[in-house]
Amino acid sequence: MSEANEKAVLAKKAFLAMSISGSKERDRALALIVLEMKKSKAKIIAANEKDVAEAKKNNLAAQLLKRLLLSEEKFSEILHEIEGVKKQPDSVGKTISKTLLDKGLELEQISTPIGVICAIFESRPDALVQISSLSIKTGNAVILKGGSEALNTNRALLDCIQSALNGAGLPSEAVQFVDSREAVQELIKMNSHIDLIIPRGSSAFVKFIQENSSIPVLGHSDGICHEYVDEKADMKKAVKICVDAKCQYPAVCNAMETLLVHEKIAEKFLPQYAKALAGKVGLRADEKALAILKKTGFDAKKATEEDWATEYNDLILSIKTVKGVEEAIEHINRFGSKHTDGIITEDRKNAAKFLQAVDSAGVYWNASTRFADGYRYGKGAEVGISTGKIHARGPSGVEALLSYKYLLKGNGHIVADYSGKKAKKFLHKKLK
Amino acid sequence: MSEANEKAVLAKKAFLAMSISGSKERDRALALIVLEMKKSKAKIIAANEKDVAEAKKNNLAAQLLKRLLLSEEKFSEILHEIEGVKKQPDSVGKTISKTLLDKGLELEQISTPIGVICAIFESRPDALVQISSLSIKTGNAVILKGGSEALNTNRALLDCIQSALNGAGLPSEAVQFVDSREAVQELIKMNSHIDLIIPRGSSAFVKFIQENSSIPVLGHSDGICHEYVDEKADMKKAVKICVDAKCQYPAVCNAMETLLVHEKIAEKFLPQYAKALAGKVGLRADEKALAILKKTGFDAKKATEEDWATEYNDLILSIKTVKGVEEAIEHINRFGSKHTDGIITEDRKNAAKFLQAVDSAGVYWNASTRFADGYRYGKGAEVGISTGKIHARGPSGVEALLSYKYLLKGNGHIVADYSGKKAKKFLHKKLK
Repeated sequence: MSEANEKAVLAKKAFLAMSISGSKERDRALALIVLEMKKSKAKIIAANEKDVAEAKKNNLAAQLLKRLLLSEEKFSEILHEIEGVKKQPDSVGKTISKTLLDKGLELEQISTPIGVICAIFESRPDALVQISSLSIKTGNAVILKGGSEALNTNRALLDCIQSALNGAGLPSEAVQFVDSREAVQELIKMNSHIDLIIPRGSSAFVKFIQENSSIPVLGHSDGICHEYVDEKADMKKAVKICVDAKCQYPAVCNAMETLLVHEKIAEKFLPQYAKALAGKVGLRADEKALAILKKTGFDAKKATEEDWATEYNDLILSIKTVKGVEEAIEHINRFGSKHTDGIITEDRKNAAKFLQAVDSAGVYWNASTRFADGYRYGKGAEVGISTGKIHARGPSGVEALLSYKYLLKGNGHIVADYSGKKAKKFLHKKLK
Repeated sequence: MSEANEKAVLAKKAFLAMSISGSKERDRALALIVLEMKKSKAKIIAANEKDVAEAKKNNLAAQLLKRLLLSEEKFSEILHEIEGVKKQPDSVGKTISKTLLDKGLELEQISTPIGVICAIFESRPDALVQISSLSIKTGNAVILKGGSEALNTNRALLDCIQSALNGAGLPSEAVQFVDSREAVQELIKMNSHIDLIIPRGSSAFVKFIQENSSIPVLGHSDGICHEYVDEKADMKKAVKICVDAKCQYPAVCNAMETLLVHEKIAEKFLPQYAKALAGKVGLRADEKALAILKKTGFDAKKATEEDWATEYNDLILSIKTVKGVEEAIEHINRFGSKHTDGIITEDRKNAAKFLQAVDSAGVYWNASTRFADGYRYGKGAEVGISTGKIHARGPSGVEALLSYKYLLKGNGHIVADYSGKKAKKFLHKKLK
């Protein structure tokens, strides 16, 4: 049996133990992680320094180095996050609905953990702790694959988590780690052992997982987000929002990639917006927008059809003029990635139309697409953002790690009594 | 473009129209289906007679013929079911949760249809109408593939449904039909157009879909259900429940395939149970059970390891003795299919242990596994039974056809104001 295989079998066993554990034990494990991490702080920081030194030697991009670095401040933040997860109310084993099917025959739908999660994430050590904490809190088991750049840091953190699980009387295999791509390739084929895959990373990577596994995947491949500036937009708000959506953090999935602007307002809006961007953003505009920009002394390239379907993740923006809210909706539903899209308008009717018809996880009115984030949504920690429409949609927290089951309690009830000519009738009385 | 491709494109367009339709129009379409079916009754019955005659010529199995036949009684039942779906409260566009992120910045989670459903089902004309009605009610679009034996019936029914959609001002492409396997093969690869596949049929077929598509699948491949007769079981209830679970309808997925019996009660229970089965069920028993059965004059074969993982869908039952509730739980979680499993006991503690630890969609106490069914659960119509743990689990009704999205309403809010040293704090006030 391969390493991945063995770990998956152990994870399934650990899940069954976790699924019958009490919330007290699970919260105790979370408290112990904090203690263990405090105790091992020097060791963890040293491991991280080793990773960072190695990464510098390998010329890792500055952006990635920043993510990898476990500063004093980030270390405290992580402890804070674990406390935050621990403080959340227990959401396992709760009654979702209850129906009296017949006298003495009660059906109850209760929340349960999902099972074994396979989480694959970039080189952020905080991601490992965040996902592990959420998984423990909800009684799941998880197999983690972190970025190879963070290997030493991740191992030191994993030691703390597994000791904590042990200390709380829970199986340490409830959180496991694999460190090779081959292991991931195997895990995504183990349908009988893995219940959900959460891949975080590049679009290409997420797409690869989605196309190569028939296990459910929670994630987002593309983040092609739009803001539509309506004819009835407030100019000041529009400029402010569109600057934020494009520039506040252009490398992330919830940044704006395409700006749609009503043709009747384009002449007024585009020069103001271009001025606010102060030449920092490369513009690719359709014919009308291009003419307006050039006429008012701003530089831009001609956009092609391909631009509408491109996630730049950079200080580049495509601009398209549209005839109205209907065309904006049509464009977004055709070229968008069902992530987050906004309308900027003072017209309630146009806003309502847009909010109803745009088929995306987040549909915004007079707000920057950058708000699409689990923390900003008030979910505490986040396991990821989903652009799928099944199970969890948008920024997802604890709810993405929960399923449910039906408990039926009878007293010798059989179906034969409810069939045929003398069939008993069901009551179907809703109790909750 | 192939036929399947064209239909998928039309379905996606139709979905967008459905998603902005009102519940009045959708209910109107359901009312019109009833009218159209009444008007076309003679034509539909004639089409069905043609299918039945053809099927008889092709020596279709009696069981399947029975499913195919659209009797006067079944015709009325179908009309009744459509009325039932129509009567249900509208569940689209409902507020699931609401959070005030900050002053003037409100996040609302609302229920939405999923999108384009691809439903593949056996030769039951009532399935076509049931799935179409549920899909229209929830504002989805659906592409149907029915059993080829029912082709004429299905076409006649589809005519009524599409006329009804037109009559209600909704796109007739919200319900479409394909009739070839090749079309299905294409559809299950169209990730950008199909949001959910609901396959109903043989285990092998469902497994094929699950393994060959990366689109989410709602379904169950196997139905290996258990009843566990505990040491503390009431003999009368145990015999009654186990007869029902095995014999009331053995061809279906919620029938018992393996009986687990506590070794301390086996000597008492097995002869009584075998007597009640009256020789109608082929028994395959482990060594202990076999010895007991033989000693008391009943016939049985020796069970092999393979039997524990086999869905007979027939009057065959495997029997295994276990040392207690823990071993029963372990066996079920290892060999079961996460469908429906029950314990028969008068001991509350053993029941509680079983209900918590068995990882199946339905876990029962003193009731027959045959209750696992959308109608019996009080869900009205059912789109299918799911053995997956993502999105919908167990018998699934309207909830399986719904997703949600987040609406964020602001007044020029930008993320830059909530970052950095002078960051504004979020309120995160739960409004619902």
